[in-house]
Amino acid sequence: MHEASIGVTLLYIAIMLIAAKLSSLVERFGQPAVLGEMLIGIVLGNLVLVGVPFFEPIKQSQVITFLANLGVVILLFQVGLESNIHDMRKVGMSAFLVACVGVVLPMLLGTYVVGPLLLPDLSANAHLFLGAILTATSVGITARVFRDLGALHTREAQIVLGAAVIDDVLGLIILAVVSAIVTVGSVSAGDVLRIVGTALTFLVGAVVIGQVFAGRVGRLFAWVNTGQGMQLTLALSICLISAYLAELVGLAQIVGAFAAGLVLEAVHFQPFEKPRIVNDIHTATAQIEPQAKAAVDEILDRYTDQHIEDLIEPIGTVMAPIFFVLTGMNVSLTSLLDPHLLLTILGITLIALISKIAAGFVVGNVNRWVVGWGMVPRGEVGMIFAAAGLGLGVINQQIFSMMMIVIMLTTLLTPPILTIVVRRSR
Amino acid sequence: MHEASIGVTLLYIAIMLIAAKLSSLVERFGQPAVLGEMLIGIVLGNLVLVGVPFFEPIKQSQVITFLANLGVVILLFQVGLESNIHDMRKVGMSAFLVACVGVVLPMLLGTYVVGPLLLPDLSANAHLFLGAILTATSVGITARVFRDLGALHTREAQIVLGAAVIDDVLGLIILAVVSAIVTVGSVSAGDVLRIVGTALTFLVGAVVIGQVFAGRVGRLFAWVNTGQGMQLTLALSICLISAYLAELVGLAQIVGAFAAGLVLEAVHFQPFEKPRIVNDIHTATAQIEPQAKAAVDEILDRYTDQHIEDLIEPIGTVMAPIFFVLTGMNVSLTSLLDPHLLLTILGITLIALISKIAAGFVVGNVNRWVVGWGMVPRGEVGMIFAAAGLGLGVINQQIFSMMMIVIMLTTLLTPPILTIVVRRSR
Repeated sequence: MHEASIGVTLLYIAIMLIAAKLSSLVERFGQPAVLGEMLIGIVLGNLVLVGVPFFEPIKQSQVITFLANLGVVILLFQVGLESNIHDMRKVGMSAFLVACVGVVLPMLLGTYVVGPLLLPDLSANAHLFLGAILTATSVGITARVFRDLGALHTREAQIVLGAAVIDDVLGLIILAVVSAIVTVGSVSAGDVLRIVGTALTFLVGAVVIGQVFAGRVGRLFAWVNTGQGMQLTLALSICLISAYLAELVGLAQIVGAFAAGLVLEAVHFQPFEKPRIVNDIHTATAQIEPQAKAAVDEILDRYTDQHIEDLIEPIGTVMAPIFFVLTGMNVSLTSLLDPHLLLTILGITLIALISKIAAGFVVGNVNRWVVGWGMVPRGEVGMIFAAAGLGLGVINQQIFSMMMIVIMLTTLLTPPILTIVVRRSR
Repeated sequence: MHEASIGVTLLYIAIMLIAAKLSSLVERFGQPAVLGEMLIGIVLGNLVLVGVPFFEPIKQSQVITFLANLGVVILLFQVGLESNIHDMRKVGMSAFLVACVGVVLPMLLGTYVVGPLLLPDLSANAHLFLGAILTATSVGITARVFRDLGALHTREAQIVLGAAVIDDVLGLIILAVVSAIVTVGSVSAGDVLRIVGTALTFLVGAVVIGQVFAGRVGRLFAWVNTGQGMQLTLALSICLISAYLAELVGLAQIVGAFAAGLVLEAVHFQPFEKPRIVNDIHTATAQIEPQAKAAVDEILDRYTDQHIEDLIEPIGTVMAPIFFVLTGMNVSLTSLLDPHLLLTILGITLIALISKIAAGFVVGNVNRWVVGWGMVPRGEVGMIFAAAGLGLGVINQQIFSMMMIVIMLTTLLTPPILTIVVRRSR
């Protein structure tokens, strides 16, 4: 299919952006925005079934596929920027245990139970991918739910958030290994070790570099603040180059973007030129009594401490939805008309729930149901895995669509049930 | 040539962004950033001559070509947003006269003198394009020079800025007409009237809609401020859809983007949720004496009045340089080794200078040399015209490269000479 003209592509992008933002109204019903973006994508992508083929060229567009990829790269950069390494250390061991069980169980159940029992026709590689898709808890979704319930600072929430970040990282390593297995055919134990080593070097290296050079990078960012978007360009370029380097050493681009986020996570900087509002308010409050003046100064200091996340956010909120809408568009509803398939979806969803709830039961001294259900929602990383599997040709359109619906079900079920278990635990 | 992989494209974009921002250091030498971006583009695009073909795939990349287009669409949207219609009315007639002469003279001299005398081998259509490329003064460059000289509020500066905006608009109409002539072969007087009519309807309609609905659009923007980038998405989508509509009715996308900017120019809005800093400072200053409190409140009110330009700016400063770097990359230095060509370039540059300086002499009661030299720098719009002519196939790579160098020469010459004439006029 021929690439749409630039003008029409601009229109497609505008429609995807507006649709994504309108769909984020699902937040009013306690659902995460990412769910709305996927649902609207499924609607747009299947309008062809009711005789509206207008959106079909979007699925084939190289330009929009690139923009969607860029969107998810920027999203993982943001997740890296938001991962607070110090907070993660505090819940440390418990989170690590929950994360490991919450990754190993779905991986094993997916590969050796879901695959052979429910989908025996698929290849062993496809079974591997099914397991991998089920591994990663969505840190965005869980955080949003706990925040909405005012339970963000409970020990349960801290463990779940820590575990979700750790299993994102484990998930990214699994993606690298599974992709290598699929691409090369089979990998030796040595290859797996090499991939895990590369991924860990990349991520741990990023954290160490970030901690060691945070001050220097912060000064660099303050120095280049010449008002021409230099800081934003620098941050974005570091993210893109890191994504490229990850691909170069055989990892996913998103691993590189996440690592770049970890590097810059610790970077805070004073804007080189303080915003005019600060100077103006200092002037206006120069004559007031010392105590009020001190309070105003403290507030101003707090707000002029910039973080790279603030620079990236406007671009991230525009770009990331393109990925989720496009991912939704690739869900083909025709492939789901078979009632046998619907049963399979429910079966996989049940496995997806059980394998994560069980992970909550490996820690003590907390409400285990809250931890378990907190781990249930899959999201961005699962969808990225499914998209990667489709791209590698290891799963077909039908399995992709099935897994997307499983991911959506875990995401749909969690908010109401987690609300109940959190309230009961009080 | 095959499209580069997504990972490599990410790397290319990072390199273009960093190169563009580094090149904006030319501002330290009194030169506009756009000049640096073009120069670095020329360097990157001609590295193949010294055996470095690494950047060649960029010129062929559909994805990067699209991003460059998106960048220039967003840039013209920003120019529209910054065009203050009320200020333009004040210098009204003088600016309009300067603009008309400053468009008609280069158009005529370009088409009937430069073309037939200096480049007799080219087609009549190519001569038309040469004239069109020379018409538009760069509002960005002139404004920057006057601001740097502290002469922004002189009558001369106001006339030049008004005229530069008007000749941008005239230039966009000329682009529509000339493109139609080139595409269709020849156009009747009726066709020209229809195109002028469409363009004027689009632009005047945009201004009228903007003035009439400014309040309502402002409230819409305040209402959708739900913290998920909704405002940015809405503004960007209006720009993209307007660019698409312009293309649909036969105008350039940038005309539509500029019109969208004019629609939203008058829109100011109060953020729905005032930034926390405002509330915090209100609380801290609640007890201070009324006069100081009033001063603080006034400052806060001023800074919480948002304009759509503020939302777009971060994306504009990242995207627009991609266009100028790519435009620079398409300048082929090999096509300029002929000494005859260098003389031609100097000839065209002379015509470009004379035709704009003469426009300064149609108004009285001002220093005419300041107005005339203020109109000299060509910039974004001229480059966009040249790129459009190359795209339509009406001018070849060699003529394109020549005209780009003419544009750069007008831009290089202006800052030092304008500085001298402004200082003498005091």
